[in-house]
This record gives sequence, structure tokens and C-alpha cells, in this order.
Amino acid sequence: MSEDPRTEDLGFARVDLDRAARTGDAEVVYGAGKTPEQVVAILRTLHAKHPDRAVLATRLSDEAMAAVADLDATVDEVARVATLGPLPEPSGLVAVVSAGTSDAPVAAEAAITARVHGAGVREIRDVGVAGLHRLLGVRDQLEEADCLVVVAGMEGALPSVVGGLTGVPMVAVPTSVGYGASFGGLAALLAMLNSCAPGVSVVNIDNGYGAGVFAARVARRARR
Amino acid sequence: MSEDPRTEDLGFARVDLDRAARTGDAEVVYGAGKTPEQVVAILRTLHAKHPDRAVLATRLSDEAMAAVADLDATVDEVARVATLGPLPEPSGLVAVVSAGTSDAPVAAEAAITARVHGAGVREIRDVGVAGLHRLLGVRDQLEEADCLVVVAGMEGALPSVVGGLTGVPMVAVPTSVGYGASFGGLAALLAMLNSCAPGVSVVNIDNGYGAGVFAARVARRARR
Amino acid sequence: MSEDPRTEDLGFARVDLDRAARTGDAEVVYGAGKTPEQVVAILRTLHAKHPDRAVLATRLSDEAMAAVADLDATVDEVARVATLGPLPEPSGLVAVVSAGTSDAPVAAEAAITARVHGAGVREIRDVGVAGLHRLLGVRDQLEEADCLVVVAGMEGALPSVVGGLTGVPMVAVPTSVGYGASFGGLAALLAMLNSCAPGVSVVNIDNGYGAGVFAARVARRARR
Amino acid sequence: MSEDPRTEDLGFARVDLDRAARTGDAEVVYGAGKTPEQVVAILRTLHAKHPDRAVLATRLSDEAMAAVADLDATVDEVARVATLGPLPEPSGLVAVVSAGTSDAPVAAEAAITARVHGAGVREIRDVGVAGLHRLLGVRDQLEEADCLVVVAGMEGALPSVVGGLTGVPMVAVPTSVGYGASFGGLAALLAMLNSCAPGVSVVNIDNGYGAGVFAARVARRARR
Amino acid sequence: MSEDPRTEDLGFARVDLDRAARTGDAEVVYGAGKTPEQVVAILRTLHAKHPDRAVLATRLSDEAMAAVADLDATVDEVARVATLGPLPEPSGLVAVVSAGTSDAPVAAEAAITARVHGAGVREIRDVGVAGLHRLLGVRDQLEEADCLVVVAGMEGALPSVVGGLTGVPMVAVPTSVGYGASFGGLAALLAMLNSCAPGVSVVNIDNGYGAGVFAARVARRARR
Amino acid sequence: MSEDPRTEDLGFARVDLDRAARTGDAEVVYGAGKTPEQVVAILRTLHAKHPDRAVLATRLSDEAMAAVADLDATVDEVARVATLGPLPEPSGLVAVVSAGTSDAPVAAEAAITARVHGAGVREIRDVGVAGLHRLLGVRDQLEEADCLVVVAGMEGALPSVVGGLTGVPMVAVPTSVGYGASFGGLAALLAMLNSCAPGVSVVNIDNGYGAGVFAARVARRARR
Amino acid sequence: MSEDPRTEDLGFARVDLDRAARTGDAEVVYGAGKTPEQVVAILRTLHAKHPDRAVLATRLSDEAMAAVADLDATVDEVARVATLGPLPEPSGLVAVVSAGTSDAPVAAEAAITARVHGAGVREIRDVGVAGLHRLLGVRDQLEEADCLVVVAGMEGALPSVVGGLTGVPMVAVPTSVGYGASFGGLAALLAMLNSCAPGVSVVNIDNGYGAGVFAARVARRARR
Amino acid sequence: MSEDPRTEDLGFARVDLDRAARTGDAEVVYGAGKTPEQVVAILRTLHAKHPDRAVLATRLSDEAMAAVADLDATVDEVARVATLGPLPEPSGLVAVVSAGTSDAPVAAEAAITARVHGAGVREIRDVGVAGLHRLLGVRDQLEEADCLVVVAGMEGALPSVVGGLTGVPMVAVPTSVGYGASFGGLAALLAMLNSCAPGVSVVNIDNGYGAGVFAARVARRARR
Repeated sequence: MSEDPRTEDLGFARVDLDRAARTGDAEVVYGAGKTPEQVVAILRTLHAKHPDRAVLATRLSDEAMAAVADLDATVDEVARVATLGPLPEPSGLVAVVSAGTSDAPVAAEAAITARVHGAGVREIRDVGVAGLHRLLGVRDQLEEADCLVVVAGMEGALPSVVGGLTGVPMVAVPTSVGYGASFGGLAALLAMLNSCAPGVSVVNIDNGYGAGVFAARVARRARR
Repeated sequence: MSEDPRTEDLGFARVDLDRAARTGDAEVVYGAGKTPEQVVAILRTLHAKHPDRAVLATRLSDEAMAAVADLDATVDEVARVATLGPLPEPSGLVAVVSAGTSDAPVAAEAAITARVHGAGVREIRDVGVAGLHRLLGVRDQLEEADCLVVVAGMEGALPSVVGGLTGVPMVAVPTSVGYGASFGGLAALLAMLNSCAPGVSVVNIDNGYGAGVFAARVARRARR
Repeated sequence: MSEDPRTEDLGFARVDLDRAARTGDAEVVYGAGKTPEQVVAILRTLHAKHPDRAVLATRLSDEAMAAVADLDATVDEVARVATLGPLPEPSGLVAVVSAGTSDAPVAAEAAITARVHGAGVREIRDVGVAGLHRLLGVRDQLEEADCLVVVAGMEGALPSVVGGLTGVPMVAVPTSVGYGASFGGLAALLAMLNSCAPGVSVVNIDNGYGAGVFAARVARRARR
Repeated sequence: MSEDPRTEDLGFARVDLDRAARTGDAEVVYGAGKTPEQVVAILRTLHAKHPDRAVLATRLSDEAMAAVADLDATVDEVARVATLGPLPEPSGLVAVVSAGTSDAPVAAEAAITARVHGAGVREIRDVGVAGLHRLLGVRDQLEEADCLVVVAGMEGALPSVVGGLTGVPMVAVPTSVGYGASFGGLAALLAMLNSCAPGVSVVNIDNGYGAGVFAARVARRARR
Repeated sequence: MSEDPRTEDLGFARVDLDRAARTGDAEVVYGAGKTPEQVVAILRTLHAKHPDRAVLATRLSDEAMAAVADLDATVDEVARVATLGPLPEPSGLVAVVSAGTSDAPVAAEAAITARVHGAGVREIRDVGVAGLHRLLGVRDQLEEADCLVVVAGMEGALPSVVGGLTGVPMVAVPTSVGYGASFGGLAALLAMLNSCAPGVSVVNIDNGYGAGVFAARVARRARR
Repeated sequence: MSEDPRTEDLGFARVDLDRAARTGDAEVVYGAGKTPEQVVAILRTLHAKHPDRAVLATRLSDEAMAAVADLDATVDEVARVATLGPLPEPSGLVAVVSAGTSDAPVAAEAAITARVHGAGVREIRDVGVAGLHRLLGVRDQLEEADCLVVVAGMEGALPSVVGGLTGVPMVAVPTSVGYGASFGGLAALLAMLNSCAPGVSVVNIDNGYGAGVFAARVARRARR
Repeated sequence: MSEDPRTEDLGFARVDLDRAARTGDAEVVYGAGKTPEQVVAILRTLHAKHPDRAVLATRLSDEAMAAVADLDATVDEVARVATLGPLPEPSGLVAVVSAGTSDAPVAAEAAITARVHGAGVREIRDVGVAGLHRLLGVRDQLEEADCLVVVAGMEGALPSVVGGLTGVPMVAVPTSVGYGASFGGLAALLAMLNSCAPGVSVVNIDNGYGAGVFAARVARRARR
Repeated sequence: MSEDPRTEDLGFARVDLDRAARTGDAEVVYGAGKTPEQVVAILRTLHAKHPDRAVLATRLSDEAMAAVADLDATVDEVARVATLGPLPEPSGLVAVVSAGTSDAPVAAEAAITARVHGAGVREIRDVGVAGLHRLLGVRDQLEEADCLVVVAGMEGALPSVVGGLTGVPMVAVPTSVGYGASFGGLAALLAMLNSCAPGVSVVNIDNGYGAGVFAARVARRARR
């Protein structure tokens, strides 16, 4: 339908080759619902167009992780993501703070995404509010960051507590960790949207990728 | 329909005179949706039957508060409740902990209810999670209680944080304080039901009365 | 990130070794989403630290139940929980009351949890409200308890009826038993939160563990 | 648009004059959202067409109740309904059972509707499940009925308990009585739909009228 | 816990042997969540106690259907139910009306249940509102029934249309047939609760059993 | 911020003067939340720019209706809309079909909007599904239309029945008429989205305006 | 139950042979929940009755696609539909516009359905709002259509943007593409219903079939 | 309960005087639910403690706006906020972008909040997606900002479109503007959470204040 140089038609998808120019961000393949062959094809196309900086693939199935590993991509099995190409020089610092061990996949997706998008990353794990000494023990590390990503499931209280300790910009990620009246992460989402700490912004349930993009943009600007 | 001595028929209501015998609790009038005259009539009937211990009226309109004041009842305008008759000797200690000033009416309803139901009460206010130093400063007071009532609106995070600090039995009360995606207290309710701190139980939104009854039962037993 | 003696880092998790000191409760492993190996590792770590009292593992898969059985843990297949180490001397009495046979796993989780947390336990089964003679026949047993755990799915009416019969503190557990407009236990949850019997508190859907912790705390205090 | 003798065009409404022929039921004016003048006009039209049997108006405003009283209609202020014309000979017996005093308007609407639709009616009030002795005391009266209308708000448990006591056909009416997580009667509605007692059918929240029509149809048939 | 002759303890369940005496209905086993062995054991126990009238088992798995067939029970594979023992003499007539072929299992469950509970049954299928001629063609059959069961999924409009054609008592059954914004039958459920035709009562989504019990009770009474 | 000839800045609003050129539709003022003065100012601005064809104002308060009447606008009090300027020559025919008298305001908004947008309009009222003879009596009129707007509240069944009678393109409008489990029109909305009749499209609850725009576009094209 | 020539009874279904006469549309088999054998039988019956025009089968399982391929039906594996018989001469033009590659199956279902129902079809893919240049590049193609079908998941913004560019009648199809707070397509559905662009109508989530029927009806009329 | 210098007890509230030290933000009074006298008292207390920088009061009633005007506070009647004390030197640039005139109050609250929290602010109004030329005309202004606040009601599509045009960090604010299936802003909230543009974060419905705090923190850091 078009021969726009900003897109490449793979038959099953028209790949947007122009996003980096428009937004300064890395190129990305959202793997959910795609076959391993499709993921490989898009990743290759993007890498060929942008050999100098890493492209990212997220939400990969076991089969897709195996397939992209054959491409020499770097795979993170906890985050279910892969990167292909050299990571950019880090600029600014994102701290990814998570409440419990079950939140690890979402936190890892956020961390790798932020790194691919140009920020340095520090991960702070298992600092849920039911054991405050763990969170209070890392307070200085929070202050050193340019942007915080705070990941929690269940009642989603961690962003409110962190937001009372520091004025660093923060994006909260509710996870689907929980059962019963958690309703797949709705409880944590609503809690974060209603945080009594000012300046908490929120992304979709389990959306570590979106939080990572956002935080990297903030952190890079803070160090321009 | 019956001449059961356990009820008295006022025409508009059949008053249960037997609850104290069955459950050991004080008699109570739920004022919502009742006229001042109806509240006065029921309060009088219950007081006549139980002159030796306070009866309680909750959720009173301005008009009902004025009407029961004429009865020599003791009225609390923040809690919108009244008591008629002597308060029982306190046994055990309930601590009513609240997050913000907007939660005051619900906390007050819980406190008076617990007192009428036979417990001693201590109120701890304005210790929301966005300023942790306030909560940490009262930690000892939490430990001294036999049961905690923890009241919070918005994201409802306070019970999780308190539950990580102490093993005292706790009942959490979500309030309708908030706006937008708080959905009238639903956000706080879901958060409390999903608390990562074990042993948190929850009552209905704004139900200070129910929490007070519950906490007094626990506290009285702890000091038998 | 820390060498706090209150935690032990297993790589995939930072185990909180301090909860007993803080809250007086048993240590616990929440098995959902963990591999059998992870459950075994955490259970072992906690047991090594607390050889004198039972530690608890809940929500175990078939594989995890097999794995912990090899550890000489005691496994309950209905409740899908395991305990490792000697049970504490029981203090106080928790009665776990359930409505139907389908509620058995949740009731069993509550019962074992309460026992591990130091209370004596009596189970009263199959006393749903559609056959009141069964419930009325056990009324005396309800009165003997220090705390009631009342477990029901479908319309969740049992706590209201029990709450009209006795003033013993009660925590209600809605279960996901039902179909259609039960919405995974939401119907029972809402019913219990709106109980016309005063003093009913509620935990999350299917949260037998939380109810057991709560009830044991209340029961132990009643017999101090 | 038509000159069908089965309808009469009042300009603001086309009145269906044929419903009685089709369904055997009384004619009715639903007053909500209509002006007093409109209610009067429709009531008069229906009465002129059916002078030999009562027509019914429901959900009347204060003004509409005053206006129809001038028509010599019989007004019930609790139910907010009026009837015009002679009531039919009663056939069969409907028992309207309600849980609390706040449910009185809905129960009254059901009772008058059933009476206008040709059934005899007995009202049994204030038999909520939190005081079972009241309900058990009227058990014989339940058995004598041809159809039960059971009205309850809050947790909506009464139909389940009644349904365990008797096999009389029952229609349950959830009311909007409650607050917080009652969500305007949703809690009671869901509870009734999930009743563990078989053979409970349900109408819309506060729909005493619908329950009354239904119960009268069943009761009349039982005595043909 | 009891030796009440009204129950029999099978270890995994306490079977209520008294329901027939209390409500006049058949005994029933709800098969969901039970093993084939459990279904067989309960069915046998009930049949031994009531050899003279059919007992019913519903919501059977493929395995349970095979197991009860070995018992000489009569199995209906569409309805996924079985009966054991002689069916009662039919009294009164229930018409089970369904909208589409996908509603067949729920309609069949209702039909067999009504038959086991003592009514005669006529099934009228595939008369959805998008082809009115089919429904108008069976109008006389609707009038001959003592009670209607009207089964529909998707938008659930059939009860409103039937309710405008006849005054026979009707119970509506929403089914989970549909997708997207049907939300598992919620759309049909809400539509039926809001029917503009008076006298429509509703049971839970897919609850053919409940509708069958209800309709049989009404139909039997109509022919006493 | 701009001097684009396609907009005019009134201080409180930047009026889009270009919509007609882009979409061929009339200009419109959405009156909700605007003061009478603001409505008058925008209406005047649009009329000055487009003196040759009617501009439309919707959702007017009583005060705004009075204010625009002074402008010589034509006001419809049922629809709460006004038009200023000459109506276009009608092309094609829209039939606006409504279920009950309470749906009249929404139907009227749709009818006037369609007329202003260039279609001829026929209104067919009070043809709800509980009295099918009324709808079957106008079947020929449905066939003559180029597009149908079908308006209904409560259970929203009318579009499904109409959709089974004719293949004319249809847009359905759910209204907020109803109570209880209608949830402000949600029941009708879901029913219409799940219609078993193919080719039913739906607009927002009470959105007569949107339906009118849509239907006029279809009708005009049918007569080009 | 009937020998109406307008239906044919296959035992498991009564096939409506008359829909084409009533509505002018093609005959269709909804494959969800049907066995391959049932799909084949119904498709054959309809084809025998209407050999001169294509009949359609939708929502086919892999097995059903294989079975109908043996019938010489034309199968589209992306759309999961099949057609049997000659396609009609196209009249009018439907443009099916989709936001992302994951929306392809729904867009394909809409496109084939519109074609079977007599319209010409153009597909415009991958023009999501996050890369506006793609959409702006096809603006002329939008104007050439007689009706637009706009398909999008996630936030469902595409219909609003398209609706601001053109006045062509448009039906929007929300898809279930998304995760977390997309709630199975609810987010896109609500967005489309609330579109700020006038004249957007909406069908059920993933209902490409309904949109295709609707659009073809509009397009055919535009070229009569 | 404490004499902590970080708080001041006004009887009805314990004012946190320490927030600025902890987070670097301005002090603020949330006016909803407070009397004019309470707002004045808290504003005065905060101003006395921080005379050198503006304190902020939000969500003011008409009466509270009048009362604080007497204090020499600067009042914005559209935003319903007031400031007392000198505004800080602006650092960095926040662009507040809004979709329609009805979104003005929320946009104004965001703008003033960002200014009080130390950022420069540019407001860009009335650039809703249904008239893309308005948004495309201000594209350069978006790029100049350090952080964007994007405010929209109804379908909430604006953040997705803006997010496709620029990589500037963006926080989206859904507003309660809309009706029917907007459900008080839920539609816009869900749309924004599901944005297909990466890096969009979201705050609560109508929460201009939270967005302003967040954006100012990001903008200030970008210019350190």
C-alpha cells in the first residue's frame, strides 16, 4: 500500500523503522502472539537497519527464546526478553525497586528495557512493606537514582511508602501477583492510582517494558 | 405476629431485646434511614430494658443528633453516634489507628463502639504511610494493645505496614476517602483484602461500628 | 545488597528470618509460583534457623508436596500444605466452621495454619445454612471457642447466621466455590462484608492461611 | 401511527389496554419519571377501560401520591403505590417475608402488587438471619403459603435460610439497603443468585412489583 | 460429630438424607469438583435411602458419567446428568423454551431436573428472537404450561418477548453462551433482571438445575 | 496559540469552524457543562460562519434553552436541543424506533440530529418487545427506511427483535432508563452489543446525537 | 415441533432457511462450540438450499477448517472462516482499517464477511495511531469507501482519529488484543463507545462478522 | 501524642511540616472535605513555616476560595486552587496539553501545581484527536518541553497520539468528562493504561495535582 522508507513490509507485518528518529527510543518487538519465526524475522530486520544499537524483544515464549538465542541475541529467561546489538552507553540512573520474589519477572523486564533505552540501572529486590527494615536500609540508594521504577503486586503499597521517603520521580508498576480479590492485579493498580504520596505515576499491570522506557527517558534527560 | 419476650413491637419495628443475652454485646440502633422520632423511640425502649449499660445509636442525621441530645444521650458529632446509659468498666485495650484527618469520622465511630462494647480505647491519628516517621514513633503503643483497628482510605496501605511491625490482632477498615479510581473506597478495600502482611482481617467500607464490635470482643477476651 | 542477619539470601529470594521476633508468628513459605526446589530450599533454611518450632509451607503443587515429603515434613493433601518441625503446645481454641464439602481445602488450610501458630483447633464441617439443624446442633461447640473461622462459598451466608448465634470473635473466609454469578468468590466476599451480624471480619477469597494466623493470634491472647 | 383498539394514544404515551387480555394481569402505571398529571391521566384511562378491577400505580413521587389521592385512589405511602378500582377476590396465598425494617417499602410494594394481581397476602416482617428465633417462630406460616416473596438487603442471606426450611416456591428480592461494598444492592443480588438452597429465583434490586406479579401468578394457579 | 439419622457420614461428605422430608424435592448430587468414586458413593447412599424415587446427579465429568452408567443410572450426555431410580408420576407441565442450539445443555439440565422433581416436561427449542416466526408458531404450547423455563444466552432477550405473550409464571435462565462483552453470561443475566415484561424471575447463569426445581414446584402445585 | 482560519478563539474555547468541510456534517455545540452565555456565543459564531445551514446545540439546561430561544433558535424541550439556521433538504429516510415513553428524550435527540444532518426522519414510538403486536404492526415502515435508529432502555431487547425482521442497517442506542441492576444503562448496552441479530451496531448510553449523525450519513449515501 | 418450510431440522439444530428472504443477507454458520461434523452438516444444508450464493462459516476450529476444506469450501486460516458457493457480484466498497498486526484475524473476518454479503472490500493494515504518518498516508483511500470498518485493540484510539479525518460511515470493532487492564478488550470497547468523533458506532469485542454484515449493508445501499 | 518538631497539631489535624525537607516539594493543603476555616488555618501554618516559598491549596469550595482570598492568597477559579507566598524561580519546562474545553479545570490544576513545584509551564489547549491539524500544528512546542502532562476525558486517545509524535516523558491524566459508558472517567483511564505508545504513565482520574508534582520533578532534574 506504500513504499514509505520508514516502514518495511514483511508480509505478516509492516515494521516501523522510524521510531528511533521520532522518539529517540530503541526499536522493539512485542513477542506475545507472534511465532518464533516472526520474532526472528522482525528482530533481524530491525537489527539490520540499526546495527549500532541494541534492539529489544519482549514477552517471548520458550520457543522464541530458543530461536533468538540462535541469532546471537542475549536472552534473559526471567524477564523473557532478548536484545540484539550493542547496548548504549548508560546515562543517568534508574533504580528498579521490587516488593517480592514473585515480582521478579516484571522488575527484570523494566530493568533491561531501561538499560536498552540508554540508562544505567540498579535493582533493589524484596523490599516489601511488611518488613520495613529492608526498605529503610536502602533509602540512600533511592536518593541516588534519577528515576525510580517501583514494582509490586498484591496490595500495591510499596509506591506509597517509597513516595513518602523521597522526591525522586517514580513510576509504579502493579503486577498480577496475588489471588482472589486481587483480580489479576486490579487491586494493586487501583492502590497505586490512589497513592497518598504525591507524584506517583502508574503503568499497566505487569508492564515492565513501559515503565522502563519511561524511566530511561527521565534519567537520560537528568544527565544531559 | 408473636408475643416473644425477646422482641418488642413498636409498630414500625420489632426491636430485638435479646441480643445482649445471645452475644454479650451492647444494644444498638442503626440510624441511617430512620426518622429522629424512630431513633428516639428505639433508643428509649432499649435503654428501659437495659438501664444498667449504655446503648448505642450510629449514623445519626443532624436532626437525630439534636433529638437524642434531648434524651440526655451523649452525642459525638464527628462520629455521628450517641450513647445512652453508663459505659461499662473497660477491659482490655483497643488501639484505633488512622491514616489521615479525613478518616476521623470512621475512626471515631470505631473508638466509641469499642468503648461501649466494654474495651478501653486509645486513638492514634494521622499516621499515614507517606510520612513513616509518625508511625514508627508510635510503635510501642501498637504493641500494648490487645487488638488494633486500622482505618485508611485512598490506597489503604496502612494495615500492611502496621502488620509488618506487630503481631497484635488487627482489623482493617477501608474508608470512602478518595476520588476517581478509588470508586468509593473499593481501592482501599481491595488493597486491605490483598495485604501481604498475614493476619489482617477487613470489614466493610466505612464500617467503624463493625470494627469496634469486633475489636472489643477480642480485647475483652484477652483480659478475662 | 545487605548482610543483615535478619535475612538470608538464597539467590532467588531473600528469606526474612526475623518475622517470628517481630510478630510472634511461625515462619511460612508461600508455595504458589515457586518450584519444588525453591520450596525445599526455603523450608530448610527456615527450619535450620528455627529447629524448635514448626515452619509452614502453603499452596503446594503435587510436585512440591512430594519434594517436601522427602524432607520428612508432614503433608496435608487436602489443604496442600506441609509443616516441618514440632508443633507448638496449643493455647486457646479456634473452631473452623465450614459450609460445604467443596470448602474443605480452604478450611483445612485455616485449621493447620492456626495449629502451627499455636492454637488448638476444632473443625466443624458441612453446616451450611440450607440445613439449619446441622448448625443448631453444634451451637455449644461454637461458644467454647476463643475465635471462629467461618468458611463458605456460593452466597456466603453462613457467617451471618453464626454471628447471630454467638458473640465469639469471628473471621469469615469466602471461597471461590460456585459458578456463574459467583464470579470466582466475589459474591461470597461481598455478602460477608455486608453481613447484618455485627463483628464479622473478612479475609481474601480462599485465604485460609490468613484466617488461621488471625484466629490463632486471638485465641492465644484469650488464654494468656 | 395506528388506531389499534388495543392501545390509546394520550400524546405523551400510547397506553396498552390489552395486557390483561394477554396475560391475565392487572394494568399498571410505572410512575418513575412521569409527572403527576401524566400518572393521573394514564390511571384514569386504564380505570375507565377496566372499571371492574383495580389498576395499580407504582414508584410515585410525593406529588403524584397527592394527585392520585384526589382521584379517590387508595394510596400506600410506605410502598409509594396507589390502586384505583375494586380489588379482586383473593385466590391462593402469597407470604411476603422481609429481613429488616429498612426493607419495608419493597416488601409493601410486593404485597400490594400481589393483592392487586389476585392473591391473598400475608406479611412477615423483621425475620433477618442474625436472630434466627424470629424466623423459626414463623415456620408454619411459611408452609401455608402458595408462594413466598423473600425480601432482604445487605448480605441477602434470608432466601437461603428460608429455602432450607421449606419447599414452597420462592422468589427473592434483593434491596438496595446497605452501604459501602453493598454497591447499591449488588451484594444481595449476587448472594441470592448463588443461593445454596435449590429453587430460589430472583428479580431485580428493589423490584417488589415484579416479585408481586410473579408470586400472584403462582398462587392463583395453585388454587384453580 | 453427630449421629443424627438425617445425615450419613461418608468420610469425605455428610450426606443430607432429610431434604425430601423438609422440601418435598428429590435428592441430588452436585458433581462438579467430585471424583467419579465420590459421585458413585453418594448416589448409592441416596438411592439406598430412597429406592422408590429417582435421585439425581448433575454437572458430571466424562469419567463420572461412565462410572454412574455402571450403576445402571440413566445418563443424559448433553445435560451431563444422571438419574437413578424410578421417575415420579408427572404432575403439571413445565415447558422448557430455549433460544439457540448452544443453550441445549442448560435446557436439558432444566428439563430432566423438572421431570425428576415430579413435573411433566415439554421442550421447545431454537426459538430465538431473531426469527420471531418460530416463537409465534409455538404460542399455544406456551399457554398450556403451568410454568415456563426460558433459556437464552447472548443478549438474553427471549424472556422479555415470551413474557409479553403469556401470563404463565416464568423463570429465566441466562447462559454463558456468547463472547467478548457477554462476560460469561453477565449480559444475559442483567438483561433478564431488567426485563420490561412483568413477572420474570431469574436464576444464576447456566443454572438449569435451579430453574428445573423451581418450575416443578410451581407446576405440581398448579395440579394439586 | 494559532491563527488558523479553521478555528476561532473565544477565550474559553477554540471553535472548530472546519468540521463541515472535513466530514460533511453540521456544526454542533455540546451544551453539557457550558454556561448559557457560552452556548449562545458558540452557537452565534458557528451560525455566522455557516448562515446557510442549521447548526445544532445539544444537552441544554433549562437556562440555556431559554437563552438560545432569544436567539431565534428552534428549541425542542423533550430532546433538550436547539437548531439555528435553515434545515437542509432531506435526503434518504431515517426511522427512529423507540421502546417506551421514557426513551422519548433520547429518541428525539436522535431524530432532530438526523434531520439537521440532512436526512428525512420518521419516528416510531412505544413499540417495546413486551407487546409485539405494536412492532409487527409497523414492519412495513421499517423496510422503507434507509437506516434505523433503535432506542431502548431496561433489557435493551428491541434491536434484536427488529434485527430479525429486516436487513436495513441499524444503529442501537441503549438508554439509562431502568433501575437497580440496569446500572445506568449498562444492562441495555451489553445486551445490544451481544445481539443475536447480525449487523447491529451500538453507540454510547443515551447518545441519541451520535446515532443521529451516523444514521444520517448512511441515509444520505443511500440516496445519492 | 413444526414442519415450517422456513426451517430444516437436523436433530441437533433447526436451521433457519429463510434469513436471506427476510434480511437480504447471506446464510451463516457460527462454528464456535460445534463439532466439525455439525459444521459440515449445516453448511451442506444451507448450500443445498442456496446453491447460487456463498454461505459462510465462522469461528472454525482447526478440525472444522480441515473438514470443510474437504467439502470444497474456501478456507481463510487467519480469519478462521470458510465460504461455500460463488461470491456475489461486489456492490459498493467497504474499507477495513486495522491498527496492528495482532488485530489481523478480526479484520480478516470482517473483510470476508463483507465480501460474502455483497460488498467490495479493501484492507488497510497497520495504521495504528502511534505512527500517524501511516494513517495520514492512506487518507484518500478512506474517502473512497462507502463504509469503514475500523479494528483496534489496546486503547482503541484509531476510530476517534479516523472519525476526525472523514465523514464516511464507520463501524468500530474493539479487539481483545492487550493485557492487564485491557480486561479482554473492555478498555478498547469503552474507548470506542466514548469516541469524541461523532458518528462512530461499535460492535462487540472481536466481532468482525457483525461489523462486516453491517458495513456491507451500508455499502450496498450506497450503490443501489 | 508527640512533640515532634516535624509536625504541628492544630487539633483537627497534625500538619506535616517536614515534607519539603524529605521530598523537595512544596507544602500543600487538600481542600476537599475541609471547612474554609480549616483550609485557612492549615495554609497559614504552612506559610508561617515556609514564608519564602509558595504553599498550595487544591480542590477548594466556593467558600474556601473566598476565605483564602482574604488571606492575600492568589486564587485560580477554574482550577479551584490557591497559592500563598512567592512562586519559585522556574527551572525546566512542563507542557500541559489538553483535549477539550471541558478538561480545562484539570489542566489548570496541573499547570499551577507544576509552577508551584518549580517548573516553568506552557499550556496547549483544545487539541483533541478528532481535529488532528490542531495537534500537528503544535508539534514543535511538544518537543521543547522537558515533561508533558496530557489531559483528556471521553476515550482518552490523546496520549497515544502525542506519544507517537515525541519521546518527551509524558504523564497522562484521564478526566471524568463524558457520560454513559465513560463511567466517571474509567474509559479514559483504561485507554491511557493500555496506550500503544510506549512510555506513557498515568495518574488517577482528574488528578491534575499529582501530574503537576510529577512533571515538575522531571523538568527540574532535566535542567539541573
